[in-house]
Amino acid sequence: MEKSSQYSKDIQSHTIRVRVPGTSANCGPGFDCIGLACTIYNDLQLTLLREPKLIIETTGEGASNIPLDDRNIVWRSISMLLERAGAADEFKGAIIRMENHIPLSRGLGSSAAAIVAGIKAANAILGNPLNRNELLRLATDIEGHPDNVAPALFGGVTVSVVNKGQVQTFSFVPKMKLKLIVAVPDFPLSTRMARQVLPKDVPMKDAIFNIGRASMLIGALIKGKERFLQNAFDDVLHQPYRAELIPGMADVFQAAKDAGALGVAMSGAGPCLIAFTLERSHLENEVAASMAQAFLNHDVKTKSLILALDIRGAVVLNGEQ
Amino acid sequence: MEKSSQYSKDIQSHTIRVRVPGTSANCGPGFDCIGLACTIYNDLQLTLLREPKLIIETTGEGASNIPLDDRNIVWRSISMLLERAGAADEFKGAIIRMENHIPLSRGLGSSAAAIVAGIKAANAILGNPLNRNELLRLATDIEGHPDNVAPALFGGVTVSVVNKGQVQTFSFVPKMKLKLIVAVPDFPLSTRMARQVLPKDVPMKDAIFNIGRASMLIGALIKGKERFLQNAFDDVLHQPYRAELIPGMADVFQAAKDAGALGVAMSGAGPCLIAFTLERSHLENEVAASMAQAFLNHDVKTKSLILALDIRGAVVLNGEQ
Repeated sequence: MEKSSQYSKDIQSHTIRVRVPGTSANCGPGFDCIGLACTIYNDLQLTLLREPKLIIETTGEGASNIPLDDRNIVWRSISMLLERAGAADEFKGAIIRMENHIPLSRGLGSSAAAIVAGIKAANAILGNPLNRNELLRLATDIEGHPDNVAPALFGGVTVSVVNKGQVQTFSFVPKMKLKLIVAVPDFPLSTRMARQVLPKDVPMKDAIFNIGRASMLIGALIKGKERFLQNAFDDVLHQPYRAELIPGMADVFQAAKDAGALGVAMSGAGPCLIAFTLERSHLENEVAASMAQAFLNHDVKTKSLILALDIRGAVVLNGEQ
Repeated sequence: MEKSSQYSKDIQSHTIRVRVPGTSANCGPGFDCIGLACTIYNDLQLTLLREPKLIIETTGEGASNIPLDDRNIVWRSISMLLERAGAADEFKGAIIRMENHIPLSRGLGSSAAAIVAGIKAANAILGNPLNRNELLRLATDIEGHPDNVAPALFGGVTVSVVNKGQVQTFSFVPKMKLKLIVAVPDFPLSTRMARQVLPKDVPMKDAIFNIGRASMLIGALIKGKERFLQNAFDDVLHQPYRAELIPGMADVFQAAKDAGALGVAMSGAGPCLIAFTLERSHLENEVAASMAQAFLNHDVKTKSLILALDIRGAVVLNGEQ
């Protein structure tokens, strides 16, 4: 797997800008499998340096909580990429400028975006020694699972499985145009805590419930068959257990549906909740307001994001600056 | 739901012929959800009689085991249809001529085919008072689950879920042309016994395993992305538990894959095993021979069926005879 010195020595530029979308994992019945990218972005401007020097500047979401030394996740991801590409001896430092719009620790894949931004930018500077699937593998190794890094890299809706340690991601763009309405509560939720409330074993009938709905969700999205989405976002494997961590979740789900949402799901491990509407229904503002009010009834203040599906994934914005 | 007297009184014909495909349920990771129809058929010629008289003739598969009185499943299904359509007072008897090619109790949906044949034919004679979804609901009520009746009615690949007692089936035709190689062992297996070996609870990680693969299977079939089928037929929720009931199952799976099958699965609750190849690969005979030999190594004699996907489902062949 090691790509010692396979990168292009004829580097055109040591500075590159990349844009990476936020992501929503564990989509409804697709616990640990189905993710999607949405139109909220973190931008990274990366300059690789030959000297062992690290300059990190961050603006936007969570700027005050992001470490600016070598514990920084963007830098650690860049280091891993440099190592895997056989360029760690050549580039020992970096200037990292992040502009973050993805909220931290809310279930919108901010850490995956940081990882993907780092490796995508460094890979681009090196002349793309790693292909898309190798980037996916590296990002998965760093994050520990493909749930968010896969949609962050590929865009669209993704189905990821891990087979004998190898991650494989199937990605597609749904046939219908969707709006994604995200209610962002004003409290963070750690994925670790959200994991702890899950049981080790589940009823077979619950597994079957999710298998059928996840399969129908994928089929209906690809084929553009809206009427099959009605129950296709339903889940009994993770959301019910995590409801206790998000006050009012069931009410917010109901409020979104009552306001016309096709479906609602927890985003990642929460606390964000995400509702889906058809773009042409123009119901997004109504759904957003209903979700916010339902949360407020449980004393949870939220910010509403009205997004669409990102279909490009991580992209290089331009070369030399 | 009752359709009292909604059928057309202006009946053109009291005799009709229908053809219903065999089906394979529990397809790989799609336990209790994903099914498909294949090009092996049972034909029914039905004449509805006003007098309470029952004539049942059966030729072909299992002819000696099929009851020829009012316990007959085709007749019982016809009766249910007549009742639901409000025509039970008008038609009290029938002449039923079945020509069966679907093996009995092997996991190819012979009982679903009988049910669907009965209701499809009777419904057609009455001028189709029940629509396709109402037929699905009735067939599901009779069979107890939609796993086989859904693909028998709709054809293609089906994803069925039950939501608050209502069955919903999403059906599609895969983008790639497939061959279905079925190894039919010379012993029957009761679904009841196959149910008994399944655990009530399963590890969450096994549920996730199947959710991801079922989702990928549906996506890859619809989009025609062959490379994503490689592991998409894998299952850990039902087949491993049922392996003990089918001597040599693991070896037959391996033999099919070694001979070039895209994937292999138990058909329904077994004992049939079904392998999938691309039509253009022309590997079906090789795969069939390998599966038969692997079964023989475990002293199981089999018959091989080389089929394709049926994409029409149950059809009326002609009217008046």
